[in-house]
Amino acid sequence: MKALVRALALLAIGGAAHADEGMWTVDNFPTRAVKEKYGVDISQAWLDKVRLATTRISGCTGSFISPDGLMLTNHHCSWACVSQLSTPENDLWEKGFLARTRAEERRCPTQQVEVLVGMEDVTPKINAVTRGLDDTAANTATKQELTRLEQACEEASKKDKKTGELACEAVELYQGGQHFIYRYQRHEDARLVFAPEQPIAGFGGDPDNFQFPRWCLDMSVLRVYTKDGKPLRTPNFLRVNFDGPQENQPVFVSGHPGSTERLLTVEELKTLRNSFLPFWLQRNSELRGRYIQFAKGGEEQNRITQDSLISVENSIKVRRKELDALLDDRLMAAKAQEEQELRAAVNADPSLRAIAGTAWDDMAKAQAAYRDMLVAHTMIENNGAFNSVLYTHARNIVRGTAEREKPNTERLREYTDAALPPVVQRLKAKTPVYPDLERLKFSYSTERMREWLGPDDELVRKVLGAESPDSLAAKLVNGSKLADPEVRTRLWEGGSAAVAASDDPMIVLARSVDPAARAIRKRYEDEVEAPTRNASERIARARFRIRGTSTYPDATFTLRLNYGSVQGWTEKGEPVQPFTQLGRLFERATGQDPFRVPQTWIAARPQLDLTTRYNLSTNSDITGGNSGSPLIDARGDLVGLMFDGNIHSIAGSYWFDTQLNRAVAVHPAIIQEALTKVYKADALYAEISGAKK
Amino acid sequence: MKALVRALALLAIGGAAHADEGMWTVDNFPTRAVKEKYGVDISQAWLDKVRLATTRISGCTGSFISPDGLMLTNHHCSWACVSQLSTPENDLWEKGFLARTRAEERRCPTQQVEVLVGMEDVTPKINAVTRGLDDTAANTATKQELTRLEQACEEASKKDKKTGELACEAVELYQGGQHFIYRYQRHEDARLVFAPEQPIAGFGGDPDNFQFPRWCLDMSVLRVYTKDGKPLRTPNFLRVNFDGPQENQPVFVSGHPGSTERLLTVEELKTLRNSFLPFWLQRNSELRGRYIQFAKGGEEQNRITQDSLISVENSIKVRRKELDALLDDRLMAAKAQEEQELRAAVNADPSLRAIAGTAWDDMAKAQAAYRDMLVAHTMIENNGAFNSVLYTHARNIVRGTAEREKPNTERLREYTDAALPPVVQRLKAKTPVYPDLERLKFSYSTERMREWLGPDDELVRKVLGAESPDSLAAKLVNGSKLADPEVRTRLWEGGSAAVAASDDPMIVLARSVDPAARAIRKRYEDEVEAPTRNASERIARARFRIRGTSTYPDATFTLRLNYGSVQGWTEKGEPVQPFTQLGRLFERATGQDPFRVPQTWIAARPQLDLTTRYNLSTNSDITGGNSGSPLIDARGDLVGLMFDGNIHSIAGSYWFDTQLNRAVAVHPAIIQEALTKVYKADALYAEISGAKK
Repeated sequence: MKALVRALALLAIGGAAHADEGMWTVDNFPTRAVKEKYGVDISQAWLDKVRLATTRISGCTGSFISPDGLMLTNHHCSWACVSQLSTPENDLWEKGFLARTRAEERRCPTQQVEVLVGMEDVTPKINAVTRGLDDTAANTATKQELTRLEQACEEASKKDKKTGELACEAVELYQGGQHFIYRYQRHEDARLVFAPEQPIAGFGGDPDNFQFPRWCLDMSVLRVYTKDGKPLRTPNFLRVNFDGPQENQPVFVSGHPGSTERLLTVEELKTLRNSFLPFWLQRNSELRGRYIQFAKGGEEQNRITQDSLISVENSIKVRRKELDALLDDRLMAAKAQEEQELRAAVNADPSLRAIAGTAWDDMAKAQAAYRDMLVAHTMIENNGAFNSVLYTHARNIVRGTAEREKPNTERLREYTDAALPPVVQRLKAKTPVYPDLERLKFSYSTERMREWLGPDDELVRKVLGAESPDSLAAKLVNGSKLADPEVRTRLWEGGSAAVAASDDPMIVLARSVDPAARAIRKRYEDEVEAPTRNASERIARARFRIRGTSTYPDATFTLRLNYGSVQGWTEKGEPVQPFTQLGRLFERATGQDPFRVPQTWIAARPQLDLTTRYNLSTNSDITGGNSGSPLIDARGDLVGLMFDGNIHSIAGSYWFDTQLNRAVAVHPAIIQEALTKVYKADALYAEISGAKK
Repeated sequence: MKALVRALALLAIGGAAHADEGMWTVDNFPTRAVKEKYGVDISQAWLDKVRLATTRISGCTGSFISPDGLMLTNHHCSWACVSQLSTPENDLWEKGFLARTRAEERRCPTQQVEVLVGMEDVTPKINAVTRGLDDTAANTATKQELTRLEQACEEASKKDKKTGELACEAVELYQGGQHFIYRYQRHEDARLVFAPEQPIAGFGGDPDNFQFPRWCLDMSVLRVYTKDGKPLRTPNFLRVNFDGPQENQPVFVSGHPGSTERLLTVEELKTLRNSFLPFWLQRNSELRGRYIQFAKGGEEQNRITQDSLISVENSIKVRRKELDALLDDRLMAAKAQEEQELRAAVNADPSLRAIAGTAWDDMAKAQAAYRDMLVAHTMIENNGAFNSVLYTHARNIVRGTAEREKPNTERLREYTDAALPPVVQRLKAKTPVYPDLERLKFSYSTERMREWLGPDDELVRKVLGAESPDSLAAKLVNGSKLADPEVRTRLWEGGSAAVAASDDPMIVLARSVDPAARAIRKRYEDEVEAPTRNASERIARARFRIRGTSTYPDATFTLRLNYGSVQGWTEKGEPVQPFTQLGRLFERATGQDPFRVPQTWIAARPQLDLTTRYNLSTNSDITGGNSGSPLIDARGDLVGLMFDGNIHSIAGSYWFDTQLNRAVAVHPAIIQEALTKVYKADALYAEISGAKK
């Protein structure tokens, strides 16, 4: 899985735990079950250390592996950094990167690194402000209270000498059954230390993605620096055990699973199955084709397209298997039965019926409204019609400046004080913009806007006028100056007056689209989000009352810990072994992408031990967002680096299949072999292997 | 709808008729219902004349409109011809074509034109040869008997002085409830007389496709010539009434609807919904993106891509709305209920139970087997992995030569004597092959083969070896000589010895794939086709017994006639009027594709009557394959030229929605305006308007 995949901002409730299933919050980890099943004692100290050694980075997870802020994650979690630091002359994607000294470490322009340092349950506070309100008012009140709580939390941290300034973020768990404020230590200076060549990191490319057996060195190493430009000193790091784990050994994964929808109502699943997924797949499959054909235009076209292409291919594979899962009658029948049982239990108890008796009907109505507006909402408010880096900047500038001038609690949630730092970082960062690729994406997406909204739609006519998608894209991309971070910064800092005065064509477009976008967003919030939230909360409360709280919430890109063991599975009657070895990599190599082994490896081959373990599989319950997560043994050592799941793991969005769902990790032995024999990264290897607790 | 869309070679049974619904065979037209509803008498002479004036052309329908073999059809039904006759210097697609004299008429390289002259019910003969056989044996026996009957029919026609040589084709109706041999007069010499510029024929392009209101001059005129090179003389032509029909006037459509699946079992619909359609849509959406990006490479790239692109876009729209229809719970629930009622009736009667009691369970098993092998079958046997004109030639040569050397009844059905003429015509025809486009398609499809079958699949490894899809495509396309019809003809005529000796790389590939392709075909025939055929026939027999035969069979690209009236519909509470006018064409024009009005029209605009009726809608029950069908009034005059349906008509694959399903035609008034004022096609107009009965 490549980076976080959030299917939809839908709410979810926690499900019943089966063997080794579960994405547990760290304050509710089932230590007793682990003790019973594996005979392993997990202490609070162990839990705290693992939590503080785990980092959240854009759409992924990482972990500290030295006391000097060295952070291990996947190669595919550092793509933005690797791409942004690449040029036609120095293509880090193709050539890889190794800083032999700290001075050579290169700052990633838009990387943020967060460590969870505290959690506060604010459910009672939310309940207090929403009591007695109708759906729409409750929805608004909830958001305003969460903004207020985040702000209060951040202000308090500034005054707290012990913690120093923290980032605070509201977290909704158990489908609104719980609300938390999570406190993060946030670092904005992360530097690239090591990245192998992409062809070895992503060996097998899209054909092998979500497959196992597998041979990917999907790793990169960054170092986190403090504000004063020094490597972060931390006692909370994981020692790397290069021997790796044995089959059936108990293992743990700490990380940030992005999104699951295991306990959505049937109506919400039908929205995904009938509307969201087919619509998404059709559009993005076309985009894939456009990227592929564009990339054939030459070496430079190929270079600048790679990360966009691989990302969209990864998402296509995810969505495709999600759709397959939802089209599987067994799954839908199981979901329907589960729901029927819950509804029967609710209806049998007058106090529960008072809470949730009508919730499913309300949900059905809200979801029907959503399906009706999904195309327009996706296209206009979610930028489906304007797939473009420059437009995204323009929209952030137009909206963000307007929102910033409102009181914090009145703003759209993505522009509150707590949410702004990454927005501003991206606006101000010097990152490459490729006009050819921008035109491709913009033309593609406005053409699809015209297709799906229709050529006679009011907004379509306003945007396109007498232009074709191509001619409009050329005018806007060629005419806009927003590729320049200084131009963006001036507009941002100039506020709404500067934005109103701008004649940059992307700003002009974003200004002219904004009223329609806000209108469809408002309709979405009132007719879909508010009643969905309300119905979900009522169902969650009923479920808590009936089934207790010894369950885990759906994934929300917040810290979770799970337990399991190293194991393969049985595929159509044939056993799949849990370890692969280096030798097979060379056997599968063809010399052609994506089965191309870099020259460094071919040169080093005589020195390599071909029996070195390469990738491994476990039954860990993970999903997108867990990429880069440490695989940890009972002692708390790192024994693997999660980077994928098998093909069956994708259905994990909706249910956990204990027979088939497997996670996939890089084995530490291949990391050792690579660092010492292929890349001769002596200093880096010494720092990792010498790291003492 | 652009050309015939056959979703799957699935069998279907006839459904109950509702008001104006029905694709009636011409020997079972409900004249009484027409009389009752519209007060119109339809005589046998009327029926015969309409039948003999209606033509079947590749994937479409046409009709004779003069005694000298002039045939009217859609522009999009003549694409192959227009493209094949175009060159970079003389692009008929862009410039249109008008033969001002008969000498200027240009022969279409691969056009065949067929007229239905006879029908024989052979159901008893099929029943006689299959009695007592198991599924697999019955399936084989049926095919062999159909081949024998076709052969006997063709041989008999050669000896019959009255008919002369005829083409004979087996037709399965009512899900195998009836088998017919249809006899066609076949013409292989059709010449292009008139085609407007594509931008006016297909004004609005993909965005407007399957939409109404509409402004398309989707017409072309061909002339059919006899074997001795003279225009075909025929008394069976339709007089064109340029006034067109009035609202609510009863009208009839004669033509060849390609395929409907209105009475498939629920399990067969699930195969479409869960497997076939998502798989198809994902792959072809990507292909669309590749075409679009490739076409941006220059004028010539754009020219050579247009017909492929528009075809795939049309099919994508069809499949997408078909998937929407099958994802609509109301449809699936209705289908399930209908099936349940039929099963209950079968189970209530021991004699019916003996026939069909287990049919649905057998069908479920066959469909499960199909879903399991659908990817491999599509890729390997149905050429999904080798989307290429050259490969298609190679495969026809490799298979066809081998099959031709077997006795007629032992051959694959597509290579029997009755089926060979169009195969041979395509092999020998001089048609352009574009190497860039060939490489695109071949690379795309082998890359998807690797994705869906997996890089470690035996055939994938055999085909790709150490090549990438791109490098393999380059080797094969650049190395093959099969673009030359003389090379193809030599191989074809040289038979299997010449094929075995060939080192043409496409022939070598087709040879090496053939065993695997035949193996998966055999599995498909034995495990899917045979039990599906058997179960379908048993269900059809039970249905006939319960519901009688006053129904129509699913569409099978054979001649059908329907009745209805000119009418609009109500879209989300707003009435849609059944006629459009010329003036709005100019208002919607932007000067950019696909909303570009050609210069001829801009120049003629001052002379044009902007109130001229342009397109019209009717409630006729048509589908893909009816493109080019004449819209006929009660007198038997042509009052419109069918070319599309509204967006709701696509769900007509599965059911007929009387409220929403509408067909769309070119109004004769705009044809008159175009021929007389825009194109000044005086001789052509005189021939059409002067045609007397």
